[in-house]
Amino acid sequence: MPRTFRAAAAQMGPTQMGDARSHTLQRMIQLLENAARDGAVFVVFPELAFTTFFPRWLLDNSELDRHYEREMPNPEVQPLFDRAKELKIGFYVGYAELTSDGERYNSSILVGPDGTIIGKYRKVHLPGSVEPRQGSRFQQLEKRYFEYGSLGFPAFHTSPEFGNAIIGMLICNDRRWPEAWRVLGLQETELVCVGYNSAGYDPNGGSGEDAALRTFHSKLVVQANAYMNATWAIAVAKAGTEDGACLIGGSCIVDPNGLIVSEAHTLGDEFLVADIDLHLCRQGKDKMFNFEAHRRPDQYRMILERTKAIAPKMEGV
Amino acid sequence: MPRTFRAAAAQMGPTQMGDARSHTLQRMIQLLENAARDGAVFVVFPELAFTTFFPRWLLDNSELDRHYEREMPNPEVQPLFDRAKELKIGFYVGYAELTSDGERYNSSILVGPDGTIIGKYRKVHLPGSVEPRQGSRFQQLEKRYFEYGSLGFPAFHTSPEFGNAIIGMLICNDRRWPEAWRVLGLQETELVCVGYNSAGYDPNGGSGEDAALRTFHSKLVVQANAYMNATWAIAVAKAGTEDGACLIGGSCIVDPNGLIVSEAHTLGDEFLVADIDLHLCRQGKDKMFNFEAHRRPDQYRMILERTKAIAPKMEGV
Repeated sequence: MPRTFRAAAAQMGPTQMGDARSHTLQRMIQLLENAARDGAVFVVFPELAFTTFFPRWLLDNSELDRHYEREMPNPEVQPLFDRAKELKIGFYVGYAELTSDGERYNSSILVGPDGTIIGKYRKVHLPGSVEPRQGSRFQQLEKRYFEYGSLGFPAFHTSPEFGNAIIGMLICNDRRWPEAWRVLGLQETELVCVGYNSAGYDPNGGSGEDAALRTFHSKLVVQANAYMNATWAIAVAKAGTEDGACLIGGSCIVDPNGLIVSEAHTLGDEFLVADIDLHLCRQGKDKMFNFEAHRRPDQYRMILERTKAIAPKMEGV
Repeated sequence: MPRTFRAAAAQMGPTQMGDARSHTLQRMIQLLENAARDGAVFVVFPELAFTTFFPRWLLDNSELDRHYEREMPNPEVQPLFDRAKELKIGFYVGYAELTSDGERYNSSILVGPDGTIIGKYRKVHLPGSVEPRQGSRFQQLEKRYFEYGSLGFPAFHTSPEFGNAIIGMLICNDRRWPEAWRVLGLQETELVCVGYNSAGYDPNGGSGEDAALRTFHSKLVVQANAYMNATWAIAVAKAGTEDGACLIGGSCIVDPNGLIVSEAHTLGDEFLVADIDLHLCRQGKDKMFNFEAHRRPDQYRMILERTKAIAPKMEGV
């Protein structure tokens, strides 16, 4: 049985702090329609797709709250859900989640072609700091504005429209952590969706890494972790100059060999499509990365036993 | 204090089954001397550097045993140790180990500039099979000829000649397993040495992956895992057509950004040098990959709890 479906990466250009939500939704719907016209049945949007990357600012609670979704969907994002359902397109989208208990997460959901929410993920690897960095024009306050995700890295069965793919989700910085990919790989994941907002060099701030190097890093980790887990991956940026800060692009669709099959060439709204042949996962999953035959968990204990790096003891000390 | 030293990758061309050990040693000493002339104080040789890659053949015990070292050093390999000590060069070298208890391992050692053995590693991720594949011209019988390494992935303090680097060792297929790199990263490893013998497409056999794709995979995993653990890496092939089988090249020296700073361009004996500035590890180890700040081991439990991949339960089943 063929297990192929056409998927799209919907890279978004910047969303400024002052942009109306309706404007952002319209851009997302446009990307959805363009992808549908090219035959895609699944679309991956970025992390925090409905707002600016607000953790770059120190905000008080009244400014903060409007960036969060209290339920999903909700009236403000409903037009995206409605249009996707009309087009019979499923999607991944990242958003800031505020629970009824007042907990805040950097979350993503997987939505089926019938509009049902198949699964939710809450970002585990929050970068940045709780306290603002003195003297920095831009902050990275994810550790202040979000709780650490504690749902693990769940993978989800999907429907025949997506070849019954097993799909997992990561968010931004998670893609640099091989543990996250491996937990997905250990669930037979065939497609990993990753939305991100990654800063490049800030010509005004000065301490960041340059955008070309950051873009190289982003592709490198997606390609290698896709290969090492024999899975497809779709990595999607919010890109460009947002509120004066630079975000890298580099959105790409990567096959289970770690090869880029499609990639973005702009820092704006841009969609890429590729045919996701899930059978291409089998070569890796059955041979080189046949985990049952080759993994040795008894030799990996340190991965759980320690959080931080500790140098080996010196001889004789 | 500067913590920089010059290291070399000593790629080796093929070593045929019939080659005299003395001839192979002479080639290794030549590479050592060339590297020394270029100022290198540390040289990385391949996996199973003293012999052909004998696991490609089904051998009886009498044929098998001559490929193993019963102690290290021993009279046959002593000339390499002697010359390295004269030149005050340390090295990594891979070899087949036969212990006094009759256990067999695919091993490597780290040798200091004074000739002392600083550390030993025994390959954990043995590829291939115990039983020969019927109808294959070439076998991959590492699971038949070696025990699984059970020393974990130890990292070793070294001496001022190597900037007091903390050095770890992997062997061949290990480089495709992020768990191995992470255990080294969790020990503050600053340089990972990897020797390998990796088959490329066999034009006579037909079922392998093509050499260009395999070379891409080899570099990809070294680059990404070096980056994700903020360590230098030196990956070194035995390359070319050995006993009629094709081995990829692609030896490279990779910095903690995952960038290749030097790479091989042949499939023969070839050495590459690079200045290893250990301070370059700090950016990653202190910020992006500050494990203490960002790792979440409670979310990684599946990495130890299961060996094989298991699909998530179906809803309602």
